Parts: sequence; C-alpha cells; structure tokens
Amino acid sequence: MKTRHVELGERSYPIYIGDDLLGNADLLKPHIRGQQVMVVSNETVAPLYLEKTRYGLRDFDCASVILPDGEEYKNLDILNQIFDALLENRFNRQCTLVALGGGVVGDMTGFAAASYQRGVDFIQIPTTLLSQVDSSVGGKTGINHPLGKNMIGAFHQPRCVIADTGSLDTLDDRQLSAGIAEIIKYGLLGDAEFFDWLETNMDKLINRDNATLVYAIERSCQDKADVVAADEKESGKRALLNLGHTFGHAIEAGAGYGKWLHGEAVGTGMLMAADLSMRMGWIDKPTLHRTQDIIERAGLPIRAPSYMDFDHFMERMSVDKKVRDGKINFILLKAIGDAVVTNEFNEIHLRETIEAHRALTDT
Amino acid sequence: MKTRHVELGERSYPIYIGDDLLGNADLLKPHIRGQQVMVVSNETVAPLYLEKTRYGLRDFDCASVILPDGEEYKNLDILNQIFDALLENRFNRQCTLVALGGGVVGDMTGFAAASYQRGVDFIQIPTTLLSQVDSSVGGKTGINHPLGKNMIGAFHQPRCVIADTGSLDTLDDRQLSAGIAEIIKYGLLGDAEFFDWLETNMDKLINRDNATLVYAIERSCQDKADVVAADEKESGKRALLNLGHTFGHAIEAGAGYGKWLHGEAVGTGMLMAADLSMRMGWIDKPTLHRTQDIIERAGLPIRAPSYMDFDHFMERMSVDKKVRDGKINFILLKAIGDAVVTNEFNEIHLRETIEAHRALTDT
Repeated sequence: MKTRHVELGERSYPIYIGDDLLGNADLLKPHIRGQQVMVVSNETVAPLYLEKTRYGLRDFDCASVILPDGEEYKNLDILNQIFDALLENRFNRQCTLVALGGGVVGDMTGFAAASYQRGVDFIQIPTTLLSQVDSSVGGKTGINHPLGKNMIGAFHQPRCVIADTGSLDTLDDRQLSAGIAEIIKYGLLGDAEFFDWLETNMDKLINRDNATLVYAIERSCQDKADVVAADEKESGKRALLNLGHTFGHAIEAGAGYGKWLHGEAVGTGMLMAADLSMRMGWIDKPTLHRTQDIIERAGLPIRAPSYMDFDHFMERMSVDKKVRDGKINFILLKAIGDAVVTNEFNEIHLRETIEAHRALTDT
Repeated sequence: MKTRHVELGERSYPIYIGDDLLGNADLLKPHIRGQQVMVVSNETVAPLYLEKTRYGLRDFDCASVILPDGEEYKNLDILNQIFDALLENRFNRQCTLVALGGGVVGDMTGFAAASYQRGVDFIQIPTTLLSQVDSSVGGKTGINHPLGKNMIGAFHQPRCVIADTGSLDTLDDRQLSAGIAEIIKYGLLGDAEFFDWLETNMDKLINRDNATLVYAIERSCQDKADVVAADEKESGKRALLNLGHTFGHAIEAGAGYGKWLHGEAVGTGMLMAADLSMRMGWIDKPTLHRTQDIIERAGLPIRAPSYMDFDHFMERMSVDKKVRDGKINFILLKAIGDAVVTNEFNEIHLRETIEAHRALTDT
C-alpha cells in the first residue's frame, strides 16, 4: 500500500492506494470520530462492494443509502435522499458519511456531508479510476443544475481517501479510458516527465497492469494534492486542473448528461484546448500530435457531437464557473507540462477549433 | 448610524444600525466585488423595500427573485428558485447576493450564496427585528427538512449587515415580540446588565421608541458578534446562543412550521429552560419569576401547544443538532447572565417542565 498526503494544515488527510483495501477496519477507524456511519453508494457499486465495506465498519452503528447510478441523477432531488436517510436514522453532528462509488457518488456524498447540520465528516472510497485520480481528492463537492454542471456545491475536504485498485477489476473499458483522461491531464498541465512516462506505459495501463495502475494513480494524486495544497479554493493555480473542462463540460451538457462519460468529454476537451493553443501559435504541430496520439491510445473520443457548432458551445460555455467578468477562461498549453489560464483567445481560432472537432456523423 | 464589527480575521465584517439605511449606495458599494447583484426577497417585503434597495444598487447589473413568505417555504424546492434565477441570469462566481427580508430570506439567501458555484458573496439586509438581532449576524445559513429545522446548511459569513430600523415600522406586533425574544436571550445567557436594562426599558421597546430599539439592536449584535468571534463553527461557547432553542425547535416543528413564529417558540423555550434549571436546583424561584415576567411583558407565549406531551417533545428533540452521542443537550441557567450547555438533566424534571408548560386548551 502507498500513502500520499494532501497538506492543508489541520484539514490535511491521507490517500491510501493499493489492492484489497476496502473493508480494512484498521484503515477506516482512525478517521471516524463518532459512532454513526452512513455509507452512500449506488445501484451498480453496492452489490459489488457494500457488504465488504460494511464489514470494515462493523464496530460502528452503520446504515446505508443506495442512489440510482449515473450523472443524470446528480441533482437536488437525489441529494435529498441522502438527507432523508440521515434524518430517518437520526444521525447527529458527530456522524461520518462514506462515499462508496465513482465521482457522482463522491461529489453528492461530499456535498451532503458539507451541508448536513452545516457540516459533518466524510470519507471517500472511490471505486472508479476517474474518481481515484481526480474527484475524490481535493474537496470539491456538488451537484448539477439543468443549466450547468457542478453549479451547486461546497469545498469540503474528506478525512481520508481509500483508493482500492481491486475495485477497478469490475470497471468496463470505457470507464477505464475515462479515468486515464484525467491521468493524462496531470502530465499535460504540469508534469512533462509523467507525460513521457505515460507515452511509454500507455499500453500497460490500458491492459490494467496492476503496478502500472498503482503508479499512475499515486503520481496523479500527488500532482493533484500539490495543486490543492497551494490553492484550495481555486483563486489561482487550481484552475489549471480544469484543463479540457471548459470544452468538456459543454460537451457533457450539450450531449445530455449521462451520454458522454465525464472523462471522455475531458479527453476531447483537452485535445480541443491543445488545438486552440496551436492555432494561437503557443504550441507546434508535433506537440498537438503527441497530445492527440496519447488521447487516442487511451481509447478516448477526439470529436464532439456533430450538432455542436460554435453557438452551441458558446451558449454552454458562457455559464461555466470559469467565466469571469463576462469572459470565458480557457486553460491552454504553452508546452506539454506547462498550462496557463487565459481569456486572451481569438474568436476565429475558437471557431476553427470547434469546427475541426465536430464529428461528421453521430454514432 | 452605529457600526459594530464581527471579528473573524479576513472574513470580518461590519454591522450598520440606524434609520433610513436601505438604498444607501455608499454603504453597499464597498462590499460588492463584481458587477452582478441578485436581490432575494419575499412577497411581503419586496413591495415595501425592493425598489429602494435596487436604487442603492443602481450602479450594478441588478436582478431580483421574490420567494413566497413564510417558514414553511424554507425548503429545498424554494431554495432552487434562487439557483434558477442565478443561472437564468448567467451569474458568475464574482456575483453578490443580497438578502432583503427576515430570517427565512436571510438563511436561504446565505445558503444559496454558500453553495452557488461553491461559494459567492452575500449581504444581509434584515427587515425584521428578529433577523436584525440574530440570524443576520454570524453566518449560520440553511433550510429546513420535514424531519428537522435548519438541518441542511452552511457556515457562510456575509460581507456586511445593514439593519435599517425604519423597516421595523411595517412590522406587526407579533413579529416585534418575536424579535424581542432573541434580545432577551442575550441578557439571559451572558449579559446580566443588559437583562436589567431590558427590565427597565421593556415598555419603551414594545412601544417602538427608536433610540431604545437602536440600543437594543446594537447591544444584541455586539453580544452575538463576541460569541461568534470566539467560536465561529460552534465547537463550544456558540452553543449558548441556542438557549431556548432545544424546546423552541420542538415547538415549532410540533406545531407545524409557520404556525408559531421562531421567536415565539424561543420565548416559551427559554422559560422552559429556566424552569428546568430551577427544578434542578440551579436557580431559585425569584430568578424564574423574573424570566417569566420579562417574557410575558414582551408579549410572548409561555405555554407549548396542549397536545405536546413528553413523548412528543422527545421525538422532536432527539433529532436536534444539539444531540451528541445520543444525549440531548440543553442550555440551562446557573443565574441570569450565566448559561451553560449540559446533558446532565433528570428525566423526571424534564417531564415536569414539559407538563408545566402545556397549554390547557389551544386557541
């Protein structure tokens, strides 16, 4: 087992990475203050891992709530099911919530924990690659609104993160690729050496070699933890973690939540960000090709839906959280491993980028 | 105009108290960072004060949303109307929300501000006495759940509080008394000198003498600000502000939200807390009588609904936020001006207290 740390003063916490960690009472116990524990999971993950997780919590008063599975359920109504369960079970302020599932479960459980009685503890047990390398770390929690993704939420740090690589065995290939998108992101935005490593090891990663997976998760978590420690509330550097997300969120919303996986949209979004960077003369063609090559090798899509034209993207991007004083902010590349936040783009370049990445037909 | 301060490091903020402050652009401007301002009000307050408030915001891009009036609307559905308005108007992270109304509007607006895009600025313009002396100060925000009051929320401090005593002219007597309940609370829990002052000045207060009102608001805000500065997230001393609230919340919920005003329930709740303190031998009969006398002179009820027996109270109080490790916490009195948090009560004394304060018949 590997351990990494997110350094945030008295809110610091460990990330445990390794095989067969689920249900390990010794890992969980030191991070639970009270007696009441509510495990929040979904219909897909609960049959696989709920029993094992509850075994690890056998010394506590444990209850659970099972949500429907999918990004389309990441809303206020389903969030309320968690509050219902907490109140029906008379959970108090000393309780702990445990998120057992992917990013949707983690984000909703985290926001429920941030809001229940104005804030209780929670633990992240991410069971998808994407949530292990991204959403479980850093304390961003929230839900979607019909008019925008993650528009309602809170910064609320977990007490610990337990990334059990064993839970990836049950992940389908599409979900695995979606997770790799966020791994590539860390290389692209600030860790050129890791990007090189990914070029060498992408085949092993796609084939789920365990040591390769553990290293990729560990390094991604460390890269993210360093950014979060430097800028918890996203007043500066943390915005770089949104590389690919301005385009990506527009694609997710434009396609209808649940059609595209978040990581898939981020994959295409990163390529579009690289393409826009090239059109602006910030990176050269070979750099764009390296970016496209690794995204394709990860099994990720490289084109947005055919009906998503310039206006469609603008409509979606103008409600993005990264909009500031009416200007859309993009995270663009100066080089592999060197991303910057900017609103200094040329509309013609943006139009060309969007046109270049519209699918010719939709499958 | 008087100014008081809540000292919370970089989140410190002023409370302005005086007549005709609404619509004062010079007061508002320094506390608004971006260009977009959303005024949240309700159907009762908006016709009276919205236009004037918007006049004070004439240099900003200002929109407004009007909620239905009443504690029964302090829920997730109505909260969502604020998010709808923010997103329909494409409000960004630099926006400011302005709460124009009583405690319900303030609590909901504050929680919307805490959650919108994971946190934006807000300003409190409380228009009821109760919200001027209590809920607008200190950063507690939230909504109710069918199973408990203020069960979902956040700590989120406003950028400033503007308490315009002119807005109290339109307040009915019942609302005025409800506000005085919270004023009495500050005297009872930690400011014996203020309690004495209230005994002397209650008639002037009830008759809305302006200088008396301003002083009572100012002193209440200072007492509250001191407690909040010492313990923002209620890990200790701040719990004292819940004097009367364990019984009070049970009465509000038991009667059905909206039937009793919050301050009315707190009035009866404080008397019950004093009664329980006396039965435990902590205060003497004359002290209980002084407490009952001031509550009655403020025009507040002294009995809970007739159908609220011991079991009914226990059912409600066991989901209270003040429950810890299964034990109900009460704020009880050692003397006037000296309250303590305790779970060391005798069930027989509690039964007696509840029986002694059940109305014989309900009106």
